[in-house]
Amino acid sequence: MTIARTQAAGGGTLLPEVLEFTSSLSLDRALLREDLIGSLAHLTMLSRQGIVPKTAAKLIRDGLVALWTEQAAGTLSLPDDEEDVHMAVEAELTRRLGDPVGLLHTARSRNDQVALDLRLHVREQCAEVLLLLAALIEQLAARGEAEQDTLLPSYTHRQRAQPITGGYLFASYAAMFTRDVQAFLFVLSQLDALPLGVGAIAGTSLPIDRDVTRSLLGFTRTTLNGMDTVGDRDFALDFTYATARVLLHASRLATDVIDFCSGEFGFLKLDTSISFGSSMMPQKRNPDVFEIIRGKSGRAVGNLMGLLVTLKGLPGGYNRDLQEDRQPLLETGTLVRGVLSMLTLVLPRITFDRDRTLQAVTADASQATFLAEVLVKSGVPFRAAYKSVGALVRACQEKGLKLAQATPDFARVIDERFTKDVLAAAASAETAVAGNVSQGGTGPDSVRVQLETLRNLAAEARDEVTRIPRLDALFSSLKEASL
Amino acid sequence: MTIARTQAAGGGTLLPEVLEFTSSLSLDRALLREDLIGSLAHLTMLSRQGIVPKTAAKLIRDGLVALWTEQAAGTLSLPDDEEDVHMAVEAELTRRLGDPVGLLHTARSRNDQVALDLRLHVREQCAEVLLLLAALIEQLAARGEAEQDTLLPSYTHRQRAQPITGGYLFASYAAMFTRDVQAFLFVLSQLDALPLGVGAIAGTSLPIDRDVTRSLLGFTRTTLNGMDTVGDRDFALDFTYATARVLLHASRLATDVIDFCSGEFGFLKLDTSISFGSSMMPQKRNPDVFEIIRGKSGRAVGNLMGLLVTLKGLPGGYNRDLQEDRQPLLETGTLVRGVLSMLTLVLPRITFDRDRTLQAVTADASQATFLAEVLVKSGVPFRAAYKSVGALVRACQEKGLKLAQATPDFARVIDERFTKDVLAAAASAETAVAGNVSQGGTGPDSVRVQLETLRNLAAEARDEVTRIPRLDALFSSLKEASL
Amino acid sequence: MTIARTQAAGGGTLLPEVLEFTSSLSLDRALLREDLIGSLAHLTMLSRQGIVPKTAAKLIRDGLVALWTEQAAGTLSLPDDEEDVHMAVEAELTRRLGDPVGLLHTARSRNDQVALDLRLHVREQCAEVLLLLAALIEQLAARGEAEQDTLLPSYTHRQRAQPITGGYLFASYAAMFTRDVQAFLFVLSQLDALPLGVGAIAGTSLPIDRDVTRSLLGFTRTTLNGMDTVGDRDFALDFTYATARVLLHASRLATDVIDFCSGEFGFLKLDTSISFGSSMMPQKRNPDVFEIIRGKSGRAVGNLMGLLVTLKGLPGGYNRDLQEDRQPLLETGTLVRGVLSMLTLVLPRITFDRDRTLQAVTADASQATFLAEVLVKSGVPFRAAYKSVGALVRACQEKGLKLAQATPDFARVIDERFTKDVLAAAASAETAVAGNVSQGGTGPDSVRVQLETLRNLAAEARDEVTRIPRLDALFSSLKEASL
Amino acid sequence: MTIARTQAAGGGTLLPEVLEFTSSLSLDRALLREDLIGSLAHLTMLSRQGIVPKTAAKLIRDGLVALWTEQAAGTLSLPDDEEDVHMAVEAELTRRLGDPVGLLHTARSRNDQVALDLRLHVREQCAEVLLLLAALIEQLAARGEAEQDTLLPSYTHRQRAQPITGGYLFASYAAMFTRDVQAFLFVLSQLDALPLGVGAIAGTSLPIDRDVTRSLLGFTRTTLNGMDTVGDRDFALDFTYATARVLLHASRLATDVIDFCSGEFGFLKLDTSISFGSSMMPQKRNPDVFEIIRGKSGRAVGNLMGLLVTLKGLPGGYNRDLQEDRQPLLETGTLVRGVLSMLTLVLPRITFDRDRTLQAVTADASQATFLAEVLVKSGVPFRAAYKSVGALVRACQEKGLKLAQATPDFARVIDERFTKDVLAAAASAETAVAGNVSQGGTGPDSVRVQLETLRNLAAEARDEVTRIPRLDALFSSLKEASL
Repeated sequence: MTIARTQAAGGGTLLPEVLEFTSSLSLDRALLREDLIGSLAHLTMLSRQGIVPKTAAKLIRDGLVALWTEQAAGTLSLPDDEEDVHMAVEAELTRRLGDPVGLLHTARSRNDQVALDLRLHVREQCAEVLLLLAALIEQLAARGEAEQDTLLPSYTHRQRAQPITGGYLFASYAAMFTRDVQAFLFVLSQLDALPLGVGAIAGTSLPIDRDVTRSLLGFTRTTLNGMDTVGDRDFALDFTYATARVLLHASRLATDVIDFCSGEFGFLKLDTSISFGSSMMPQKRNPDVFEIIRGKSGRAVGNLMGLLVTLKGLPGGYNRDLQEDRQPLLETGTLVRGVLSMLTLVLPRITFDRDRTLQAVTADASQATFLAEVLVKSGVPFRAAYKSVGALVRACQEKGLKLAQATPDFARVIDERFTKDVLAAAASAETAVAGNVSQGGTGPDSVRVQLETLRNLAAEARDEVTRIPRLDALFSSLKEASL
Repeated sequence: MTIARTQAAGGGTLLPEVLEFTSSLSLDRALLREDLIGSLAHLTMLSRQGIVPKTAAKLIRDGLVALWTEQAAGTLSLPDDEEDVHMAVEAELTRRLGDPVGLLHTARSRNDQVALDLRLHVREQCAEVLLLLAALIEQLAARGEAEQDTLLPSYTHRQRAQPITGGYLFASYAAMFTRDVQAFLFVLSQLDALPLGVGAIAGTSLPIDRDVTRSLLGFTRTTLNGMDTVGDRDFALDFTYATARVLLHASRLATDVIDFCSGEFGFLKLDTSISFGSSMMPQKRNPDVFEIIRGKSGRAVGNLMGLLVTLKGLPGGYNRDLQEDRQPLLETGTLVRGVLSMLTLVLPRITFDRDRTLQAVTADASQATFLAEVLVKSGVPFRAAYKSVGALVRACQEKGLKLAQATPDFARVIDERFTKDVLAAAASAETAVAGNVSQGGTGPDSVRVQLETLRNLAAEARDEVTRIPRLDALFSSLKEASL
Repeated sequence: MTIARTQAAGGGTLLPEVLEFTSSLSLDRALLREDLIGSLAHLTMLSRQGIVPKTAAKLIRDGLVALWTEQAAGTLSLPDDEEDVHMAVEAELTRRLGDPVGLLHTARSRNDQVALDLRLHVREQCAEVLLLLAALIEQLAARGEAEQDTLLPSYTHRQRAQPITGGYLFASYAAMFTRDVQAFLFVLSQLDALPLGVGAIAGTSLPIDRDVTRSLLGFTRTTLNGMDTVGDRDFALDFTYATARVLLHASRLATDVIDFCSGEFGFLKLDTSISFGSSMMPQKRNPDVFEIIRGKSGRAVGNLMGLLVTLKGLPGGYNRDLQEDRQPLLETGTLVRGVLSMLTLVLPRITFDRDRTLQAVTADASQATFLAEVLVKSGVPFRAAYKSVGALVRACQEKGLKLAQATPDFARVIDERFTKDVLAAAASAETAVAGNVSQGGTGPDSVRVQLETLRNLAAEARDEVTRIPRLDALFSSLKEASL
Repeated sequence: MTIARTQAAGGGTLLPEVLEFTSSLSLDRALLREDLIGSLAHLTMLSRQGIVPKTAAKLIRDGLVALWTEQAAGTLSLPDDEEDVHMAVEAELTRRLGDPVGLLHTARSRNDQVALDLRLHVREQCAEVLLLLAALIEQLAARGEAEQDTLLPSYTHRQRAQPITGGYLFASYAAMFTRDVQAFLFVLSQLDALPLGVGAIAGTSLPIDRDVTRSLLGFTRTTLNGMDTVGDRDFALDFTYATARVLLHASRLATDVIDFCSGEFGFLKLDTSISFGSSMMPQKRNPDVFEIIRGKSGRAVGNLMGLLVTLKGLPGGYNRDLQEDRQPLLETGTLVRGVLSMLTLVLPRITFDRDRTLQAVTADASQATFLAEVLVKSGVPFRAAYKSVGALVRACQEKGLKLAQATPDFARVIDERFTKDVLAAAASAETAVAGNVSQGGTGPDSVRVQLETLRNLAAEARDEVTRIPRLDALFSSLKEASL
């Protein structure tokens, strides 16, 4: 009988249905690499502190290294009747190396071991997510660069509002995702404390040195209090929250793309390599990818919500309910990476139909606000300018004219301040777009600054990632660390 | 190249990453049986209506029957590069039988096919859930029967309140679950309309008869409008909601068990076959099963929430976002069945420590309310009785007496209506328990009626299940239905 | 000092901040009418059972009737330093009538009183909601009737799919709301059990008759078990769930309207009485009402979620946490009634631009599916027909032709079965719409049946409402019930 | 007719029901101070940039200052038929000062105005929350200091585990709340960008200087892109998320207190000033405050969820749905401040019953883990030590002995390494507690470090608050800023 079962059953015999119902092994196999890294670091510390003899430590380390190598090669097979991946690793190691493996769990409990593995997992995921966010922002900035001269309407209330450029549009999407960089950096800051070394709940009397393990694993701090540590899943909440937030952003971008691809908008065309056609209706290029991206925000919110509910009302200390963090947490990395990499893949494969966007932007009086500001610049109070332009637009509409077609004679009837110069200054959507020179506005220089800033923020995100200790790098250093 | 890819790509070539990202096959394999049943019924109708020739229908039916038989035997292997299980089935059938299979999809789209498969799935799950609920209610009633003489305190604010019996306690849990029977019957009533036959969104011009298919599949109604049908997932929401509700009930029961197992309460002991001990602390019988049951309510709520978010704000008609219903929906059956069957398995393995419960119930003045009602029966207005008893309990407490120890001499100082008879009438917890003869109260007859009613409700639930068309039965009749 | 404070403080003196923090009076004032009705019924039962003398009962009843009359007239002022509305009513009554009021609370606790008031509240709200749903369905059916000849595209993936009529579109919305009728009827069935009479948790020893109270208040059943009763908020969950579901439906309808109002779709025009224009851009008719309707689904889901979280993990019995049901529950009626009545108000004020919808429906090959089915009817297997039509549509597209413009000569190159008759049969969107004669399809008769069914379902909903005991009617009968 | 109505109706006449349904005035009155501050800063910038003449600016400023003064005095009455507080302020100002007020809205739209007011609101709330968190952490640290010698069991699986001290327990709670300090600082960092100056969506052509406004309002950055700015509510999500997280922490603390107050645990006593007694059962000191604190986590999660759902799937740009952020957002400050200040108020009013906690900690073999570590220190591998101690505890239990009562003779039968010294070293809970000297453990020095760290973190939080620009301070400087 395996270690896990013996321990679990306290000498008795658990019903197999109960063991199966409570086992997390099918899920937390995904934590195998994290578990090996954690054990390597713990073992190194135990050896350096003289708690485990160096020869035994060497033996166990070789065993752990072998498991890593085999999992990397895809040849590792773990026992599948254990409670979780942590016991499965110890059982397999014991099968191979015998009794000395019993030294590995000294001054450690599964409570702090799980807390460590989960943090290592989230840290690794965050690094990947940050790289994907950086790539996405860069790509949006590049598209913005390329579409600086594409004119299209902006929308408020899904009604055409002021004219903008493609550069401005892509900058607006990228700006959302720069906030997500911050959110994932926050997750990293929250998980950046070593949990290992607090035992089951109360610490240990053995002469461990948590600072050694902390340093080996690249954490900045150690956790403050053991009881809090074993019951804490805040970093998991933060990770699922950050994911829900970024996927909401993706859902908004996707909604725009889906609408812009419709026959009615006709602003965007999907490449055949990403559109779902129909051999019956070849004009149909269905944006399934974007619909699924939009739909996946549901999963992200569901995972956040599930975790919040599981944690609600738990008493202090460790409760086994916490194991139910596995499914939402372990799904989340895949979910967010999937959506971000898909966005990055498909965005270069959508192109503007500039005839359609131009047609839309010139169909109405989109430069009306700009005209009002021309009046304001000539000294008219804003609310008065606003009323006069309103009256002019109405008058044009009644005559079936576009605002750009209003002549000074026609306009002066409404307000004599509509001189030839004033009207000319606001005649075209291009002028209006170019005129909004305020910071964050549509003017070419404003947009250039935005795109430059976005690229810088993406570079900063990449730079942050270089400071995150990655699992592969940790393995490389731990397999040769002095014992 | 397969049907699915050809169709999906509209002649172009989808990026493989896009196909993988959008494929639901890994999830909806779970719908294989439902899909085969649906196709059998559709085919039968097409043949009867003369839309598909009888010989072709016979050929295709044999093919579908073979797939069913192979899946039952575990020998079926479907192509894994299709978009979903529906296309995988058609592709496999085509591989085996060739062109005639092209007749099967006549007057059907994947939109109505998916809507059907999901309804068949939920119907099958509900049948299982109702049986499990019936078994659970019966077992709780049986435990109630067996624990009618077990005295224990009830709790309000987690403070001991009036005395009750084990019979009353188990009846209270069972009563929660009877409402869940109603909730799952509601799900069944909501899904009980055949969606098939509405085509992609607008119906069909072929001479189908939806009533034939309806009858073959055991639905009561057909859906009203095609556009609504393909975009409707209300039955899926209802199912995840009913599951969230029943798992909240399970979480409340589990919370009581966890508390009652603690050293401090000491009311319940877990059998070693279901408790997680520790070879170090053999007195520890950890209630992991109940903690995990409590924790799983998070998953249930997360699934409900995920589905609500996915559906929010979708425009009318069919949107591919709906595919994101698969994960929450297909997880839900397993989740709810797992928790209910586990509860049914473990409840017989917990036993009361009647010394500890009796000790708790007699420690305080738990019969105080009963005493006040004795006064009321002798003509004292309730608020006055309430104040006098309060004063008496306080006086006892100051003297270190239990309420049962108050003598008439002692009590009369507070209120002369505390005669010997009055005090005697309320002297014990047993009397108080037995005295609450009101319907729904703790009196033995009241509890007997409750347990009897619970058993009847469980029997009614079982009876309802006999009226639900099950997949196996449908297969048996469909494989031999006249074509 | 008031009753409430005395009771609450157990003789001690609560910190005023604590009383304020825990008081629900500001919220549950909304339950005043329900509380008076509940007290009138309870009092009547107590009197009939001889528990309260008839004269005292008469006195108290007059007091309760006076409070009702004053609240109806808007002249009632309740003390505002009580814990909740229930204590505020008793305190006010005591101030007016003195000691006999102490009889009213006999055989009742606030736990069962609250449970009753909340059920009465939800029942009353459900009645209103059902009437609003019936009115909405009727109106959608009437609009469907009026728009039977309006042709427009249906959408899948937000891409134009097959042609439909306005009649079909409105029927699809109405069909969603008929399911909500069922959901609110389910809520009514769930709450339809009198909770009063179970005391604080364990029943009572006084000779009450719960069947009398049940009958006076128009409930079908009494609750089964007291402990379950005082901790049960399933009916509240059901009500917030039904509301979340119906508001999701409203959000989908609203999303369509918002899109259809955009300049790009141009299908719908909002009347100036419901559109938010801008004096600057008079062409702008912003659909703010529909945006807010869409947005309010968030609140509904939030209320459901809040209640689920509050209930999660509570132990059995009564816990004060349950008081936190007030905010989500008492908001919900207002929320759902607001959205439904607003929809009913604004829908008649939107009109189709039939030129735009016709233009959209004829722009592409929307009748392609219909054409394939014409081939199928002539004996071509569906998948083959599907491929030929696909090839034809592609060929047309390459030539810049609409499908309707394909000549037999042109088409026969692709498939010789494209005869003149075949092409003619599928030439127009009108024909395609009319041809989908299947039940639930777009054919005129199919739609007529749908609209008729909808009107019948609305009538059934109205009929159900007549069987719901309403607060005003209960008051009328209770104020004169024999004591 | 007011400005708002005129603008809203675009010359037409809105149905009053529509105006009422869409108005947010009843909610966003709470933003009055923020709105005045924002207008003061905007006006100052306009004047400095020469966009508004200095005299007009002076006049309008005096008007704004008067409104502030009146609202502070509680004498301000705003029109109540406006769409929102922003229009109500402008309308009231216009009523007082006439046409020049029309200058105030130059280069501003309600979109960026609302975005500003909400950020100012959240910033102000965060400052208050941080102060409350600091106070709570300080108090928990102080309680920890005072309870360093109180021995009690820790719990895993709600079963007694290793012994701890009150100092360790309070440190564990405080540690949770230090993470919330970080979460609210993250909210502050996220909102710390001035949104004003982006106009409705596209910027402005007027020569504004956003840096001037930014500096006047104490923001670090300006927002990057106008379209993103008007549709962004990430800071609101972050605030509701941080609140949900801290209220989950509060719910866990509250659950412990509720359990510890039960008759069964008996660890804690509530002062009468915060307990809800019953004049009937004076021993009952109900922990209603803690139940309501636990319950309020539901509201917090509901608000988060509501906001997530409202934002899901919105297209880019500004959509009126965003207005539905008001209720969850404006409730959140009150909610979190209420719970934190209540915790701070009531915690000093709960006291330990040290007899009961000591009794619990010595009842079992709580020092078993410690004993195993004593063996490990003498050279026994951990898993072997673990098994021997397990066997010993079982043997004791069979004899009815506590572990502390095991003699060397008795123990040596199990493992001869159980010498007198070994057993003595692990004889008492005190020793075990004191022996866990690892960082984050229960040893006295470890706990002292924890408490010291907590106090430092609280001080840092207070320090952070000094750097947050507060509304009152902003008003003081803005009312006299050079124009």
